[in-house]
Amino acid sequence: MYREQIKVLDCTVRDGGLINNHNFDQRFVREVYKAVSASGVDYMEIGYKNSKSLFSSKEFGLWKFCDDDVIRKITEGIESSTKIAVMVDVGRVDLDDVKPASESPVDMIRVASYVKDIDKAIFMANHFFDKGYETTINIMAISRDQGTELEEALHQIEQEAKVGAVYIVDSFGALYQETTEHLVKLFKKILKTKEVGFHGHNNQQLAFGNTIEAIIHDANYMDGTVYGIGRAAGNCPLELLIGFLKNPKFDIRPILDLISNELVPLRNKIEWGYIIPYAISGMMNEHPRLAMALRQSAGKENYREFYESLMNPELD
Amino acid sequence: MYREQIKVLDCTVRDGGLINNHNFDQRFVREVYKAVSASGVDYMEIGYKNSKSLFSSKEFGLWKFCDDDVIRKITEGIESSTKIAVMVDVGRVDLDDVKPASESPVDMIRVASYVKDIDKAIFMANHFFDKGYETTINIMAISRDQGTELEEALHQIEQEAKVGAVYIVDSFGALYQETTEHLVKLFKKILKTKEVGFHGHNNQQLAFGNTIEAIIHDANYMDGTVYGIGRAAGNCPLELLIGFLKNPKFDIRPILDLISNELVPLRNKIEWGYIIPYAISGMMNEHPRLAMALRQSAGKENYREFYESLMNPELD
Repeated sequence: MYREQIKVLDCTVRDGGLINNHNFDQRFVREVYKAVSASGVDYMEIGYKNSKSLFSSKEFGLWKFCDDDVIRKITEGIESSTKIAVMVDVGRVDLDDVKPASESPVDMIRVASYVKDIDKAIFMANHFFDKGYETTINIMAISRDQGTELEEALHQIEQEAKVGAVYIVDSFGALYQETTEHLVKLFKKILKTKEVGFHGHNNQQLAFGNTIEAIIHDANYMDGTVYGIGRAAGNCPLELLIGFLKNPKFDIRPILDLISNELVPLRNKIEWGYIIPYAISGMMNEHPRLAMALRQSAGKENYREFYESLMNPELD
Repeated sequence: MYREQIKVLDCTVRDGGLINNHNFDQRFVREVYKAVSASGVDYMEIGYKNSKSLFSSKEFGLWKFCDDDVIRKITEGIESSTKIAVMVDVGRVDLDDVKPASESPVDMIRVASYVKDIDKAIFMANHFFDKGYETTINIMAISRDQGTELEEALHQIEQEAKVGAVYIVDSFGALYQETTEHLVKLFKKILKTKEVGFHGHNNQQLAFGNTIEAIIHDANYMDGTVYGIGRAAGNCPLELLIGFLKNPKFDIRPILDLISNELVPLRNKIEWGYIIPYAISGMMNEHPRLAMALRQSAGKENYREFYESLMNPELD
């Protein structure tokens, strides 16, 4: 039995780009696009749409900016019904850079926002909607923002935002099934005219389990990345999600090939996945930035010390 | 809030021993015992009690046999309230080898059984109970055996078996939260006088999530292994379980040290964890033995071919 409304979004290149400054080469990105297209994945998020006046294109790769022409080089000649998505952060995009959807290879723009920035996120989402894009708002760091401000933000989105879906983003990998269930039910209750999405991080090996939990409680937009690639602990592995879903339109085999040929070799060069400091960050409901810094230092395996430093932070 | 009845059992040496023919050296096993003792873990399962007339002590290490004197060398001089458990398989133990509990360092004997062998398992468990041991029956491969035979077995255990707990063992890493919930509820309904336990395998990164699910539905005996070590995909990581449980008796820090000092170096020598052929076995509800054979072969990264071979097995 499957639920036809479920949409799967691959964010391999977008979230994976957070590990390598968005420097995937075009060949790799085409391979991802080929594989997710052949697997029947609904959307592929190919990167961020950031303003070049804010970020240097010398420092960051193509997928930090996602020029339309660059995207066309990726999709050209590949048979696909997979739609292209890009992510924008509040305050980091020049709205005038974004052409009308009818002139762009991009189908969907996802606005990532903290609860405190929700007014700006709604403004941006509506702007892109009016330009003809599918839109979502993705509420980050939700494990920290579960109070009345979240509820107000959701009411405001329901009333004002022209978005198809609103995502629960477990940025810190801190949610358990019960918190996921609670949040999905809260979102469903308030967002009567929108779909609910879920984007997990895998710090505690719960990204897939929480994604299933979200599906059980009627979230319909699900994010995954191939082999779980993504910042720090990474994301819900797309292959597990495709293996779980019963919709006959999905085919896991092209994803398996992509892992064999691309992701396993890549994992030997850059690090993501189940690594103890990321697990500790998740347990403590902390941003992984301190753990990421630790992994770049000589003390990368000093887990106890890292744990103590989070438990007993030095107060200036 | 915590539930005082929850018991945590570490099976690092027992399940991990399935990767290296039970050849951990005594220094390593003492380090595990020190760490789990200092962390407040309730039980440490140190290996199998197998008959030396069935298995060669040249081929297998000490933890395949778990002689009382060998165990004493491990526990000697270490302050601990952690109890020692051993596992026995139906048909592989010489009952006369097992001394009365009062003469042994072992506190608990866990009988691993398939549904079809449940009569033998009950006989064995009762034999050990009468010798003074705590006992459990661990029902393996439960994702394959969910029919009326399982229900009959549970009724029989409830009526005849002198055991403290009965475990759901997800040998194939095939359970999802909904199947876990269903099984825990079934066990609880029939086993009115016993506790329910859960032992997960991590093929689909769901061992921890399913363990939480089992806890939610009132299972009280939980298995984990340090850094998730165990056959093939491994088990529920003990550190995540300890991080999740709120019982103040647990301390994660000695486990973190053990991972830094012992498990990370060990993982560079022997393989376990999230590896695609094990994930495929889990999705397909298959024993991991074919995937384990693949990982020893030149085609170890040929995931598609392996997937096809499970989907379309050659019939003799």
